[in-house]
Amino acid sequence: MSDNFEKDINDRPIGVFDSGLGGLTVVAELMKRFPSEKIVYLGDNARVPYGTRSPETVRKYAWNCSNFLVKKGLKLLVVACNTASAMAIDSLEEGLDIPVLGVIKAGARSAVNMSRNGKIGVLATGGTVNSGAYIKEIGLLKPSARVVQNAAPLLVPLVEEGWIEGEVPALAVKRYLEPIIKNDVDLLLLGCTHYPILRKVIDQELINLKSKAVVVDSATSMADDVGNILNEKNIARDTSKEGSLDCYSTDLPFSFEELATLFLGKKPSSFQKVDII
Amino acid sequence: MSDNFEKDINDRPIGVFDSGLGGLTVVAELMKRFPSEKIVYLGDNARVPYGTRSPETVRKYAWNCSNFLVKKGLKLLVVACNTASAMAIDSLEEGLDIPVLGVIKAGARSAVNMSRNGKIGVLATGGTVNSGAYIKEIGLLKPSARVVQNAAPLLVPLVEEGWIEGEVPALAVKRYLEPIIKNDVDLLLLGCTHYPILRKVIDQELINLKSKAVVVDSATSMADDVGNILNEKNIARDTSKEGSLDCYSTDLPFSFEELATLFLGKKPSSFQKVDII
Repeated sequence: MSDNFEKDINDRPIGVFDSGLGGLTVVAELMKRFPSEKIVYLGDNARVPYGTRSPETVRKYAWNCSNFLVKKGLKLLVVACNTASAMAIDSLEEGLDIPVLGVIKAGARSAVNMSRNGKIGVLATGGTVNSGAYIKEIGLLKPSARVVQNAAPLLVPLVEEGWIEGEVPALAVKRYLEPIIKNDVDLLLLGCTHYPILRKVIDQELINLKSKAVVVDSATSMADDVGNILNEKNIARDTSKEGSLDCYSTDLPFSFEELATLFLGKKPSSFQKVDII
Repeated sequence: MSDNFEKDINDRPIGVFDSGLGGLTVVAELMKRFPSEKIVYLGDNARVPYGTRSPETVRKYAWNCSNFLVKKGLKLLVVACNTASAMAIDSLEEGLDIPVLGVIKAGARSAVNMSRNGKIGVLATGGTVNSGAYIKEIGLLKPSARVVQNAAPLLVPLVEEGWIEGEVPALAVKRYLEPIIKNDVDLLLLGCTHYPILRKVIDQELINLKSKAVVVDSATSMADDVGNILNEKNIARDTSKEGSLDCYSTDLPFSFEELATLFLGKKPSSFQKVDII
């Protein structure tokens, strides 16, 4: 272990990574719930999105991100990318000696707890849907649950383009939701950190489709999981201390800050560009 | 130079790369026009798209692709990605000892030749638009030309999602075209290799917007440029010989072959996965 890591494990940061900036929705929730914690965020913007890539490539990228963050002396690693959680969480858990939390497990637990009829809808990237990760995790928690999932690859680019209201996102959301809703789901899980930004459109289309499904995203349940680990392992930071957020990205493209602000809900501290391979 | 390169320069392959599979629209045109040539194609699917990344990152990726292809013993390198052409062509031309052709110059020449009123519309990725590369190249050819460009970042994901007709692409295309068309352009240049797949929707929206602008893509003019270089340098392959296409990709994600078929206009020979960094 490096000499310049915080000596007291409780003072070490929580590392969070995502393929891009979507994971900042998880960071926002963590900052709200644990204002004394130090958070280090990495967005792999030089290779975003992960959702369209092969499992092999996603695993490689997830390890690149994790290795970069682990060198910061973490006490806990949060995989805020659904695709990376779906394809790499087992490998990361096995290979790292700190706790690793993925959004898939967090989201699956929320869905199972909140669905009453056991029919659960999942909207996610192509990679996450094809991996079957939500079906597996929900099945482990509640074998009788029925999962209806649909890939919604256009929603990430819509959010990144800033088209988060109006006709185009409404039509796209409707098209993705219809096959899920007709299966009488009472819960809709947003299986990608970008989708909460489209929440208004999603709520409206559910009304239009006469569905009463409750919408959940994994940011809240991820914060629950983080809280549980901090307590269980007694590694929470002294609440009298002030928390912090350090942001890194593998690329700093045009209109980067605007998008980061959309996800975090406020202007982030400056991002530092890093090379992680 | 490696010993296993073709001894006769005329028998050496033409290398073509793109961020993903869009460059196969250029390959299709090259195969039609030069059926005796050997073509080696590389799609950087592990890092597609380039259009949303910083110039620095795009240049790095373009060099990774070029270095891989050059090792195949090329006689000519074609940069079929507009974003890479916009941001890396000068660097590639300077650093390589074979001719390098980029789609930006090819498209700019077509546009200048075909526009009568000198008002030229360009639809391209954010990266290409921000680079100002089309404005520069068109300006060099015809200083009096007026270029009206608009970034259309949603069109690549629409094509990759297979949404190439219907309401959603029509609305997106309309929204991107309106600011261009109101400037009375008589020519619309499709500044991304993905866009020709949306040609029907684009033609229809031009009619709806009461525009008579002629639509050109760079595949045809790129084939003209290739023909000129083959003649000038006397490096064309004997036309009695049969050509070939070797395809490589840095990732082989789900539904890859389907998309490749869409761009090439027929099922491609098998793609080989390669690691280029």
